[in-house]
Amino acid sequence: MFKKLLIVGCGLIGSSILRGSINKRISKKIFVYEKSKKNIIKIKRINSKIIILKKLDKRISDIDFVVLSTPMSQYASVIPHLNKFLDKKCIITDVGSTKQNVLNLKNKKLNKSLDWILSHPIAGSEVSGPEFGTKNLFLNKLCVIVKDKNKNKLKKIIRFWKILGSKVILMDPQDHDKIFALTSHLPHLIAYNLMKTAQDFQKKQKKNIIKFSAGGLRDFSRIAASNEIMWRDIFFNNDNIIKAINLFTKNLNSFKKIIQNKDNKKLLSRLSNSKKVRKQIVQLKQDVAKPDFGRE
Amino acid sequence: MFKKLLIVGCGLIGSSILRGSINKRISKKIFVYEKSKKNIIKIKRINSKIIILKKLDKRISDIDFVVLSTPMSQYASVIPHLNKFLDKKCIITDVGSTKQNVLNLKNKKLNKSLDWILSHPIAGSEVSGPEFGTKNLFLNKLCVIVKDKNKNKLKKIIRFWKILGSKVILMDPQDHDKIFALTSHLPHLIAYNLMKTAQDFQKKQKKNIIKFSAGGLRDFSRIAASNEIMWRDIFFNNDNIIKAINLFTKNLNSFKKIIQNKDNKKLLSRLSNSKKVRKQIVQLKQDVAKPDFGRE
Repeated sequence: MFKKLLIVGCGLIGSSILRGSINKRISKKIFVYEKSKKNIIKIKRINSKIIILKKLDKRISDIDFVVLSTPMSQYASVIPHLNKFLDKKCIITDVGSTKQNVLNLKNKKLNKSLDWILSHPIAGSEVSGPEFGTKNLFLNKLCVIVKDKNKNKLKKIIRFWKILGSKVILMDPQDHDKIFALTSHLPHLIAYNLMKTAQDFQKKQKKNIIKFSAGGLRDFSRIAASNEIMWRDIFFNNDNIIKAINLFTKNLNSFKKIIQNKDNKKLLSRLSNSKKVRKQIVQLKQDVAKPDFGRE
Repeated sequence: MFKKLLIVGCGLIGSSILRGSINKRISKKIFVYEKSKKNIIKIKRINSKIIILKKLDKRISDIDFVVLSTPMSQYASVIPHLNKFLDKKCIITDVGSTKQNVLNLKNKKLNKSLDWILSHPIAGSEVSGPEFGTKNLFLNKLCVIVKDKNKNKLKKIIRFWKILGSKVILMDPQDHDKIFALTSHLPHLIAYNLMKTAQDFQKKQKKNIIKFSAGGLRDFSRIAASNEIMWRDIFFNNDNIIKAINLFTKNLNSFKKIIQNKDNKKLLSRLSNSKKVRKQIVQLKQDVAKPDFGRE
């Protein structure tokens, strides 16, 4: 499909793209730009033919496909190198979890002659680093691609993600950021907040409560173990998160009142309604159907 | 161990006690009191020797061990029957998720000649009903038993749960309710609240967001699918839940401010600290170590 693929930043997502691309023979040559020495050692073990770049220089001038998979906060420092060395035939994409900010950055900083079509594969996990990547990370997972005027290049990006196994969906950046504020960013924030609350309580009460976490807390601890750089970038870049927090807080206050008033009817109807979401999620194949996620 | 065991209410937990007790030959005869006709059909299929009671009458007079595994809100209607028919040699326990309220009820309503030692096996799941019970539901799971003056009967209760595979821990009812307010009741409430928030947003925006739930929301939907009667009883009976909500809200407000102020240092330190809980939970064997709970 490509002659020269460049993966910029090779953690969980980058190394999964790398592995999937090798497996599907997506590109004749594969270049990886990675700053971390530790990661470079791990990446070299994946395949001896991978060409590791420690600098983005003229060696990238005839790359035909670039995937940015660094934390989003590093995109700005990568763009000048793309501007300087890339040819206009090249296609650029990224895997960032918010899209309006990336689009703004692209419009502001990227040479008009270059094409960057934005992607967001929904395939994260609580682990990070190239050692956790797998060639099947994207298999049957959704990948959002931001609508673009350049239909030819858009087609290529769609084909790329489909070869890796993704189910592709096209979206406006505003819609993307609104939807994921609720389905991903708010849940992560709430999970982090619950961990802090449990820690604060533990300190105050001088009781080891973590050892009793099997009754619910443990589920939240998984997504609150996600990479802090990635999540800092998300929380700072999706304006919708504040609205989502406000809506959540409003509901939490009314939930509290229902409990304080011992309003049996309202509480039962609220719990029964909320319960419906799980069934929809399982029906839409967004989660496994087994109780307890099939744990153990 | 017992001659006649009576299980009052036979859903997920009751039927797991039933299955475990049959498997470990804990009692010569096993009686099940269950109101739901649908459930009775399912229970009869488990083992043909189970004696189903549709009323609690003089047939329970020589029972030596009673487990209450109905929703907590039904305990009050069961106690008069225990008072009327049980002998003082009998031991009573329950599996309710809050303990101070059960202790109060016992002190107020149960005949002084009878002994009720409180238990709480930490073994729930999002599914309910006897068809989901398993003989190994309690295997390697914690079971909290409330400290009691009657050392002989306490020993028997401890032995009972250990035979079913539980790791037993003794606790004061106040401590129990404080700890589980944070590790179980608040996480469930937060999960239910997140589902409502997602539903509200979906209605308002007229977008199907549930189909994008794989990025985080799906984890929360599992525990927000738990039985509404059980959770109504918990939310109405643990006074600590209001304090827990207040602590959570305080932290959520400061989290929001950190984001609004783009306070990089504070945000990174908050995320890194919260991240630590997961490691502790896995080390304490309160959850599986595999990424993504080992899903799929």
